[in-house]
Amino acid sequence: MTEASLNSAATAAAQWTSDDMERLLTGPASRATGWSGAPPAGRPFIPFTAGVPDSPTFPVKEIGDAVQMVLKRHTAPALEYLLGTPGGLESLRRVIIDQMEPEPGLTLSEANVTITSGSAQAFANVVQTLIEPGDTVIVEAPTYGGAVRTVKGSGGRFEAVAMDAEGMRMDALTDAIERLAEEGRRAKFIYTIPTFHNPAGVTMPVERRRQLIEIAARHRVLIVEDDAYGELRFRGEHLPSVFALAGGEGVLRLGTISKTIAPGLRVGWTKGPTRLIDALIRMRFDNGTSPFAQYTVQEYVAAGIYRPHIDLVKGVYRKKYEAMDAGLGEHCSRFCSWAEPDGGFFLWLKLPDGVDCVSLLPHALDEGVGYFAGTSFYTDGGGADHIRLAYSAVNIDKIGEGCARLGRALARATA
Amino acid sequence: MTEASLNSAATAAAQWTSDDMERLLTGPASRATGWSGAPPAGRPFIPFTAGVPDSPTFPVKEIGDAVQMVLKRHTAPALEYLLGTPGGLESLRRVIIDQMEPEPGLTLSEANVTITSGSAQAFANVVQTLIEPGDTVIVEAPTYGGAVRTVKGSGGRFEAVAMDAEGMRMDALTDAIERLAEEGRRAKFIYTIPTFHNPAGVTMPVERRRQLIEIAARHRVLIVEDDAYGELRFRGEHLPSVFALAGGEGVLRLGTISKTIAPGLRVGWTKGPTRLIDALIRMRFDNGTSPFAQYTVQEYVAAGIYRPHIDLVKGVYRKKYEAMDAGLGEHCSRFCSWAEPDGGFFLWLKLPDGVDCVSLLPHALDEGVGYFAGTSFYTDGGGADHIRLAYSAVNIDKIGEGCARLGRALARATA
Repeated sequence: MTEASLNSAATAAAQWTSDDMERLLTGPASRATGWSGAPPAGRPFIPFTAGVPDSPTFPVKEIGDAVQMVLKRHTAPALEYLLGTPGGLESLRRVIIDQMEPEPGLTLSEANVTITSGSAQAFANVVQTLIEPGDTVIVEAPTYGGAVRTVKGSGGRFEAVAMDAEGMRMDALTDAIERLAEEGRRAKFIYTIPTFHNPAGVTMPVERRRQLIEIAARHRVLIVEDDAYGELRFRGEHLPSVFALAGGEGVLRLGTISKTIAPGLRVGWTKGPTRLIDALIRMRFDNGTSPFAQYTVQEYVAAGIYRPHIDLVKGVYRKKYEAMDAGLGEHCSRFCSWAEPDGGFFLWLKLPDGVDCVSLLPHALDEGVGYFAGTSFYTDGGGADHIRLAYSAVNIDKIGEGCARLGRALARATA
Repeated sequence: MTEASLNSAATAAAQWTSDDMERLLTGPASRATGWSGAPPAGRPFIPFTAGVPDSPTFPVKEIGDAVQMVLKRHTAPALEYLLGTPGGLESLRRVIIDQMEPEPGLTLSEANVTITSGSAQAFANVVQTLIEPGDTVIVEAPTYGGAVRTVKGSGGRFEAVAMDAEGMRMDALTDAIERLAEEGRRAKFIYTIPTFHNPAGVTMPVERRRQLIEIAARHRVLIVEDDAYGELRFRGEHLPSVFALAGGEGVLRLGTISKTIAPGLRVGWTKGPTRLIDALIRMRFDNGTSPFAQYTVQEYVAAGIYRPHIDLVKGVYRKKYEAMDAGLGEHCSRFCSWAEPDGGFFLWLKLPDGVDCVSLLPHALDEGVGYFAGTSFYTDGGGADHIRLAYSAVNIDKIGEGCARLGRALARATA
């Protein structure tokens, strides 16, 4: 080999241009964007922005103990490929069914569950299995922006259905499905966050859950129930999942430890009918979720500390919610209105006439408070009249001050 | 809510049939299969089957120590979402560039690397970013079956290029690209395993790597270089990667710790031009690879034990290879031929005339030895005249006996 041939290879490769690379991308990939909605970085602000958990509550010592148990009890399998069970550890699936997410009245087997790398991957797996370019997904308006990004990544289209104080409106859902049928389109699934909705904060009552199941089943449109926040109820009674009310048919339910234990382990799951769970597993191409992380979660739960920990974090989020509700009441109620959630991480504020989430932003950043723009939660550019506030990750001592800053920003924006 | 409405919801959902569910799947999802190639479970056999590492070499104590350092030094970020850096920890990317996979002569920044959940996810991410239904991927014949599954999951088509003792044949590659062009098709990328090929065991010399770069650049076909085994060289000189020889242009290089440290942490990476790395990151919808696992790898390498550990496992695989080469020489050389690899996990055996990987299987299982069928490594049904033997995970004391059993099976099959 000669210096000349070295040069000719590198010289040939150097001819690649940005446009050449761009032309290799799929349509959805060339249109894909990163996350949006967060204010630009700059001077520090009180971040009512991302829907992330309170990191001081992470059970660090207990996770460390669980890891030690894993390395002692499950050494080789925890560090090996999960050969033969690409859908996840059988034993952890059983723990999810029996202890982490019991569904009273429903008998499930391990074949009804697959473990994923967080519920974000669970949803991505669902989308890659069900959505081809041009397929339609029915979403709530507003809805979780991460889900929108994921559907766009497979070239999916959206049909957005309005919400009220009880979640997705069933009259609007029926209209949407019938309109799609008239256009010769069929929705593959309805994506819903029925409990402590992100961003709207509302919860769908049982009766409406049943209506949703009936409408969806009649049209053979699957329901994808995203239940990331369902454990974090700080008042009222726990409601049965849509999945449970449907007897486990026609619904995929997504769960996660990201809001209850910690997001960094990346462990979540999908429950559903075995035929669909099988298809989801066949469409996993990453050799499965880390067995090390799966065994860690299993040992953590086996130590008997999962439910007590959830009780602890529910108390934390209740207090933070109360601080924000009080702060907004004092500083923002003459400008904004909001529904009062029974759990979760979020408040969804209706802005006053003449102010939108874009015109408010410079004032908010100038005062030192951050929020997510309402437009990040709509598929059609709507939502400018709303902002989402997350109380979950902000130190409770800063929440009142953040609300005061938001009040001053609103006063300036409406002046 | 009444009992009747409960019944009506569950009754409605119960109308879902298997066919209804099947109709929701995308085309690739309904055609997707699980893993294949392994012999059926049954009576125990010596498993020269899966390409998995030697689990007794897993650095269990050192991983435990690294985890403790993570929980002490990086507590909150390791357990939190990787906000703001969906492409992975900047610090681990720097460790990969400087220590884990240095590319002499090439200056890379963190923007040239993205962390993935193993190189299987790295490849799935590449495929989801580049391959739409009908797009073509050029592969070696034979090639890694997991990659084939992944491409099929996005509806991709294959063009298979023959190999010789130096890897993919460049005349056949040129023919394939020109034939595709005549058909109005363009390959998006060439998938190659140039070093210690899976399954063929061969390594592409530098001069051919340069030819590959030139041909690919001329036609603006990307090269995807899968380098899962490259660190495991037990004789000869380390070769520069195709990525390095191309000056980092027109090539994506996939790396992993699965063969060097342990698969169970699920940490790998993709290197490439920033424009493509950006696109790959935008097409991640799983909220990124576990920061807990990423920090664990970072602390493991920071302890100075990565290179010494690779030296240790290289010695283990060299001895296993030598045991298998000797065992095959004694028991199988009158039936089979094989290339002698300089590293990696595999031997690729050409079967004698009149025997194929299917007709041999009952004899092999009866004698108590397992292999992967050659057909698992072809996109077009070829490969029946080969089997792949993995020496990596079998106890060295069993390798000779496994070869003796294979010899007896071959004797029966040719009788």
